[in-house]
Amino acid sequence: MFDLHDLTRRLAIQNDSKIVLLVADGLGGLPREPGGKTELEIARTPHLDELARRGTLGLSIPVLPGITPGSGPGHLGLFGYDPLKYQIGRGVLEALGIDFDLGPNDVAVRGNFCTLDANGVITDRRAGRIGSDIGKRLCEKLDRITIPGVEVFVRPVKEYRLVIVFRGEGLGGDVDDTDPQRTGVAPLDPQPLGAGDAASKRTAEIAAQFLTQAREILAGDAPANFLTMRGIAKRPAIPTFQEVYGLKAAAIAVYPMYRGLARLVGMDVLDAGGTLDDQMRRLEAAWNDHTFFFVHFKYTDSSGEDGDFAAKVARTEEFDAAVPRVTALGPTVVIVTGDHSTPSKLRSHSWHPVPVLLAADTCRFDGSEGFGESECRRGGLGQIEAKYLMPLALAHAGRLEKFGA
Amino acid sequence: MFDLHDLTRRLAIQNDSKIVLLVADGLGGLPREPGGKTELEIARTPHLDELARRGTLGLSIPVLPGITPGSGPGHLGLFGYDPLKYQIGRGVLEALGIDFDLGPNDVAVRGNFCTLDANGVITDRRAGRIGSDIGKRLCEKLDRITIPGVEVFVRPVKEYRLVIVFRGEGLGGDVDDTDPQRTGVAPLDPQPLGAGDAASKRTAEIAAQFLTQAREILAGDAPANFLTMRGIAKRPAIPTFQEVYGLKAAAIAVYPMYRGLARLVGMDVLDAGGTLDDQMRRLEAAWNDHTFFFVHFKYTDSSGEDGDFAAKVARTEEFDAAVPRVTALGPTVVIVTGDHSTPSKLRSHSWHPVPVLLAADTCRFDGSEGFGESECRRGGLGQIEAKYLMPLALAHAGRLEKFGA
Repeated sequence: MFDLHDLTRRLAIQNDSKIVLLVADGLGGLPREPGGKTELEIARTPHLDELARRGTLGLSIPVLPGITPGSGPGHLGLFGYDPLKYQIGRGVLEALGIDFDLGPNDVAVRGNFCTLDANGVITDRRAGRIGSDIGKRLCEKLDRITIPGVEVFVRPVKEYRLVIVFRGEGLGGDVDDTDPQRTGVAPLDPQPLGAGDAASKRTAEIAAQFLTQAREILAGDAPANFLTMRGIAKRPAIPTFQEVYGLKAAAIAVYPMYRGLARLVGMDVLDAGGTLDDQMRRLEAAWNDHTFFFVHFKYTDSSGEDGDFAAKVARTEEFDAAVPRVTALGPTVVIVTGDHSTPSKLRSHSWHPVPVLLAADTCRFDGSEGFGESECRRGGLGQIEAKYLMPLALAHAGRLEKFGA
Repeated sequence: MFDLHDLTRRLAIQNDSKIVLLVADGLGGLPREPGGKTELEIARTPHLDELARRGTLGLSIPVLPGITPGSGPGHLGLFGYDPLKYQIGRGVLEALGIDFDLGPNDVAVRGNFCTLDANGVITDRRAGRIGSDIGKRLCEKLDRITIPGVEVFVRPVKEYRLVIVFRGEGLGGDVDDTDPQRTGVAPLDPQPLGAGDAASKRTAEIAAQFLTQAREILAGDAPANFLTMRGIAKRPAIPTFQEVYGLKAAAIAVYPMYRGLARLVGMDVLDAGGTLDDQMRRLEAAWNDHTFFFVHFKYTDSSGEDGDFAAKVARTEEFDAAVPRVTALGPTVVIVTGDHSTPSKLRSHSWHPVPVLLAADTCRFDGSEGFGESECRRGGLGQIEAKYLMPLALAHAGRLEKFGA
């Protein structure tokens, strides 16, 4: 299969341009009734509208038409990595979500504390939803498990959820869940998927050793007297922004998962603070040290997930208010978009293409008067797969040579 | 990888339709300021506007979003050949640019005359930029070099630049440059790239023999007492228009490189004269002998490269004036487009999608009132990769059967 990065690697050149990718998570929305306006269209966004008049608009397709992405594929697409080629296992995402710094030899696992009866049969798959304080204490006990040849890390996530990481040479990620997905049966033993490569067989054996020790350690901790494993996955091998684009990239994100996704593609993850204002101050401070900036704003997504149309409008206006801080820095290229749509009408991520705005002096202007789904539908970028936004950003930044003579 | 030509080969049928592909090189442009018009939009183009009302418009993406093509990839795309699959080496393009008729067993090389000192170290990579007359005389001397088993051709390009072609069975094109890209060191020996296939090793040996003889022949010709080799490349194996489309194609182009690109895909290259008027007379004379005509107009690109907005407008109007000569012949399908954009604002090729117009009686009209970037953005073809224009032309010409039952 043709790899876009073969092209960007070959054509990338250096200059002193700066690119900013402003991601309002879940930006795209839906109107509440036919003929109505979306959250973004109702929000007063004077700064984004001004940027739209100076740029060109379009709609970004995160993966393929009809496919609703999670945060992982959504962001990989925005970063220019084909989300169908680079798939991130659930265990890896869970580890990224607690800011665990995964290395290239790591296999990550989502764990659930569960309750076993005297016969070893699961009676509660969530261990009575124990509190986070109990989960944390049990993880500290499990973190002391040692297995020859690998390092073991056990970290709490929330309540009954935890992350386990095995670190060592030659570990594979193709191992099946041990969670049987129902009560009344025993947990499954870790088994390599399908025929099973040697590396995944080794991971299955290590996971089995871990579970044997865990059963003894937790024996007296009912209702959390055992755990199941799900989403066992190896950290994927992803080339870095530096290598494929020649960019020195920085991520300014408040939530751990987005920091983790940025770290996966080799961005420097900066301390972002907790507010958009903190993030803007960090951007200003880091301006001279990097050539690419990924800034992530979470609350357009979370308000959409809450089904709160008005809150999403308000969060969009909050996001808009930060835009002058970005443009004041004089970036060569600014892209504003989301990793997916989260219409409050659906209370979830959706497959709808996402508004995108690219502003640069080299734009072919498209007569857009403001930033919103309807204007984007008529925009000059057309409907474009998210993975092509990075090549476009590089082009507008003068960072790609001509292909062929 | 799926090959579009597997489909066109299978579905192609014969009839007496005629297709004309009118290429205004570098046609796409940019406005000078936000809200302004492009060169094409400012130009008075009554005939193209009339054709736009009778057809359907769109924007053509030469390679992929953000990728700026050279003339080679730009034209291959228009001819329906995936420019990422068929890559043309620099030596081959240079040979095409001097109208050298490359055969399937040819390896072409860009040469630079250079100056060596008494120790064999390069002191001038361009041999003091000798005049074209001197370059021509030295090439005539080198053209007499004989190497057993291959034919050798040496042709002047301009000043210190020349083309060398090795013709023979079993030659490969994967040989590294001998130009060290700096002075103060000796030229490199020809070496196969990477591990080196047997055919490329053979080419490297032949190139070494050539250079040994050249060093003796040029010994007394300082400052041009040696040469370096770059862009060593084999003529790519490209199936012909006849084979993939069933079209008997003719090229009417003034500049050698475009004639050469047409020859690569098996077009008959007609004597085009020097003006657009000459080209139109040639088109009229050849009308009954071919089923496809590629007409190339250079000056929309060269005026763009000069950064001369007004000249590009004037050249576009000159191009427009030729359109009635084409439509008077009654072609079944006319496509008007460029191989890439060359905005005068950028003084270079660019990645911006290119206006395209397809006129045929079978068009679904899109309400276009004229031919320009903004109308094309709203046009019925949408944004389309250039390689799909040929299948569309064949379809509108009634030359493609139904796919499947």
